[in-house]
Amino acid sequence: MGPIGTDRVRVIPLGGVGEIGKNMTVVEYGQDLVLLDCGGKFPEDNQRGIDLIIPDVTYVAERMRNFRGILITHGHEDHIGGLPYIIPQLKSKTPIPIYGTPLALGFIERKLLEARLEDQVDLRIVNGGDTVKLGEITAEFIRVTHTIPDACAIAIHTPVGTIVDTGDFKFDPTPVMGKPTDEAQLKRIGNDGVLALFSDTTRVETEGSTPSEVVVQKRMDEVIGAAKGQVVIATFASNVSRIHMAISAAVKYGRKVAVAGRSMEQNSRVALDLGYLDPPDGVLIPLDELLRQPKEKRIIVSTGSQGEAAAALARIAAGEHPKIRVSKGDVIFVSASPIPGNEDTVSHTIDNLFRQGCDVIYSAIDRGVHVSGHAGRDELLKMIRLLRPKFAAPIHGEYRHMMLYRDLCETSGMKRENVLMPEIGGVIEFTKDSANQKGRIKAGNVLVDRLGDREEGQVVLRTRENLTRDGFVVVTIVLDRASGELIAGPELVGKGLPAELSANVLREAEGELRRTLERKKKGAPQYGYIVQRTKETIGRALYRRSRARPLILPVVTEL
Amino acid sequence: MGPIGTDRVRVIPLGGVGEIGKNMTVVEYGQDLVLLDCGGKFPEDNQRGIDLIIPDVTYVAERMRNFRGILITHGHEDHIGGLPYIIPQLKSKTPIPIYGTPLALGFIERKLLEARLEDQVDLRIVNGGDTVKLGEITAEFIRVTHTIPDACAIAIHTPVGTIVDTGDFKFDPTPVMGKPTDEAQLKRIGNDGVLALFSDTTRVETEGSTPSEVVVQKRMDEVIGAAKGQVVIATFASNVSRIHMAISAAVKYGRKVAVAGRSMEQNSRVALDLGYLDPPDGVLIPLDELLRQPKEKRIIVSTGSQGEAAAALARIAAGEHPKIRVSKGDVIFVSASPIPGNEDTVSHTIDNLFRQGCDVIYSAIDRGVHVSGHAGRDELLKMIRLLRPKFAAPIHGEYRHMMLYRDLCETSGMKRENVLMPEIGGVIEFTKDSANQKGRIKAGNVLVDRLGDREEGQVVLRTRENLTRDGFVVVTIVLDRASGELIAGPELVGKGLPAELSANVLREAEGELRRTLERKKKGAPQYGYIVQRTKETIGRALYRRSRARPLILPVVTEL
Repeated sequence: MGPIGTDRVRVIPLGGVGEIGKNMTVVEYGQDLVLLDCGGKFPEDNQRGIDLIIPDVTYVAERMRNFRGILITHGHEDHIGGLPYIIPQLKSKTPIPIYGTPLALGFIERKLLEARLEDQVDLRIVNGGDTVKLGEITAEFIRVTHTIPDACAIAIHTPVGTIVDTGDFKFDPTPVMGKPTDEAQLKRIGNDGVLALFSDTTRVETEGSTPSEVVVQKRMDEVIGAAKGQVVIATFASNVSRIHMAISAAVKYGRKVAVAGRSMEQNSRVALDLGYLDPPDGVLIPLDELLRQPKEKRIIVSTGSQGEAAAALARIAAGEHPKIRVSKGDVIFVSASPIPGNEDTVSHTIDNLFRQGCDVIYSAIDRGVHVSGHAGRDELLKMIRLLRPKFAAPIHGEYRHMMLYRDLCETSGMKRENVLMPEIGGVIEFTKDSANQKGRIKAGNVLVDRLGDREEGQVVLRTRENLTRDGFVVVTIVLDRASGELIAGPELVGKGLPAELSANVLREAEGELRRTLERKKKGAPQYGYIVQRTKETIGRALYRRSRARPLILPVVTEL
Repeated sequence: MGPIGTDRVRVIPLGGVGEIGKNMTVVEYGQDLVLLDCGGKFPEDNQRGIDLIIPDVTYVAERMRNFRGILITHGHEDHIGGLPYIIPQLKSKTPIPIYGTPLALGFIERKLLEARLEDQVDLRIVNGGDTVKLGEITAEFIRVTHTIPDACAIAIHTPVGTIVDTGDFKFDPTPVMGKPTDEAQLKRIGNDGVLALFSDTTRVETEGSTPSEVVVQKRMDEVIGAAKGQVVIATFASNVSRIHMAISAAVKYGRKVAVAGRSMEQNSRVALDLGYLDPPDGVLIPLDELLRQPKEKRIIVSTGSQGEAAAALARIAAGEHPKIRVSKGDVIFVSASPIPGNEDTVSHTIDNLFRQGCDVIYSAIDRGVHVSGHAGRDELLKMIRLLRPKFAAPIHGEYRHMMLYRDLCETSGMKRENVLMPEIGGVIEFTKDSANQKGRIKAGNVLVDRLGDREEGQVVLRTRENLTRDGFVVVTIVLDRASGELIAGPELVGKGLPAELSANVLREAEGELRRTLERKKKGAPQYGYIVQRTKETIGRALYRRSRARPLILPVVTEL
């Protein structure tokens, strides 16, 4: 793909179209290139042994001379989670400017400190309403509501025209934290003229408008008010406003709050430091201290609302959390909906919580425990009407969401041919009055394979080209579904391995895993946990003995 | 477990509790033992390479002297699908009596003919209201409504008391085929006294009552009336009433109907032969003939509403169906909701249909395309009030459904301790006024591993005990997610294999699979299809060369 002149602006999604997750878009004008968001995506079942999926940024890395920085819409993982793996790939000689609101940058700073990459970036705080000069491009941040405070849409002004990326949004008239979406600013931008709108489409299947966060606050308040025992609220680690709600209810009902789960601890620390959370003294306390309080005084806000095997809620549900025990009389408030693909793990976790005797309140039985952060059809239309773009393009959605968004644009009066269907790596070039899809660049998935959270540096990025370079080790395990007991295996078989991974080394690793699995407490089904422990144990055992990093494929069959 | 006297009745679920699928319950009194239903369950993702899961019937096989027959509530796979594999295991010297309504027995007869087991059974037709003597047990069939015509609840009368199994039910006042649930009969049984109620609980999470099938008929009629092109209606192969609706609409709008998918063809043939379907001449025609009609005259009723890789809809969606092509202007009416665990495959299929340019109408965007066949909370309460049982026990549900049903029983005035929580293999003994959970018998999952539909006899039943007896072969494949293209593999590695499966044999099978996969048309993502073809190709190649039947574990990674 050659250089671009000054009569056109080029937009290339590197992720987040035809999929939900790993949002990232290139916008290029003249000698200036910016990235919008830098997200990660959690792997699906058939990407076993993989920790995260990120976009392929080859195109950007080859154009660093023109690179002006990364603009972040908000601090959710699918918008910032790729940064620790992508920053090093860009091989920038100077610190990379990253622009975002304080909370998003707070989360990013924590991630990059952990990855020891803090020196490679230059974090620049902006707020809704601010503009930033990036060469001949001007980026304007617009406050929107979502499930995280301080989310923004971003307008990219170029001499050819303005491109708006909505980020994730809804029009929540009564957000629990922060102010409503800045409709005046959107309207003004619309009046000035919008060349193209790239819109969130996740919830285009749903008629009407998405309910306000106030719905959840009200329901959480009722549940905590009525609860006799311990209350556990499970949500995403980044969902600061749900922590805020829990603190409000704690104050009202004389309880105290602690957070559980490493990412939740870190995020709440960031939110406290930045003043997003401002609890009265002694209300938000460390977990150990909370667990010395009587049960009826406790609120625990925990990770694991998607049933993730390693997160606090799944461990609590399986009776295997190192500190937290639940029992009859305790209330679990699952403040999330299962992300498609996670239904099974969420449902196993809920079943396990019922087995512990808890009252579990979850989205299938109670509409008030969670509301989406994404715009329903009426809100998507409202955004179109405020901005009145010449062209529109659905992003942040599966293919069917994108198609339905195109239909929706038509009902708003747009011409069907003015709604583009972007593809990952598909180049869209806009002039003042035309839009053309112009070929494809190298793009796609890169699989992030970590050796373990704390063994920093031991990350392998597996691309299409190198996926089988390091060989692979298949680990076969058969489990009893009811008891979680090991029926057969683990059996290791390798293929394409380097010489230092001898049969002996494999046998030793196999023995190590067998001992780990046999030590595991018998009990509830633990499919995800076994997959994860298998990958960790074998990966580390082989690395320790040989410094080799083959791809580990845990194959767990349940009987 | 010793013999049971005449002062008590024993109930043992062999499946269908703490899970949805493979329903089967033992009821035993004195010298008489009967089985209620004989279902199969489709495997989950981590039971790869397996075709079906059935209950372990060791307990029944050891008590054939007392065995009086199998009572079938209705003809869905999760109530009859285990029969072809379980009949041979019972090793009965005389034909096994199977009691059911005409449609259920029609479906069963077809299955057993195909498995060449028709001589081993004695199919005995009953209708709602009929009673059957089985030793000292009397079984009474009660008409209920569901999504299939001729569904029944069954009351088992014994000298100790009456046990009622609801089967799958709702109270549909306006079923599209057949009559409403026989409330008078239920009430009479309730007045005579019910010792224990074993109730369907699948939909206990949902308030109110489940909508009538009429809702779907109305919506299907509207959609077909408005359609300009071909209409494809996807539903379960056993869902005779949706075929009936399609025929009605075809008559009204001057279209013709054909069915697509082998199981749909067979089931509609059964329904025609028995008079459940009675279309005017020339309306229901063979698929080849339909495809010679102009598009605007066509209605195709197809299998694959769960996104199953091998079924007609997924093949149509991927542009790989041998006969059916769809394009812009065609309407796809997906008349089912995704079963938990199938969301991903359903969503991929819908995305592919959108890619073909079709209008797709599916449950997330249209509440009218499908209604559940299971009772909502109000209907579950109504059943309790009609029968007024001493004891109740939730079945046909995940653990959380069972717990919520217990709460529901309490709101109806039952004592909490009178609601039992059955387990698979858990023995419940009832006297006239008590219920006791008395230990466990051998029970659990048996995995059915077929070599291929038509290679009859080549079925291996894999139990906990023998799972690794035949060794296993792991097949590793890496695919490009976007194009479906083969990036790496297939690589075969075996463990614990018999001597005749030499490295040479494995290499030949690997080559055969490689050629099969390379021949595959490039295009839409085909994860499920690859898994299935891998299992089939390798299984047959190894069997042909060595007569060995190792467990095939396809490990497909998508990048």
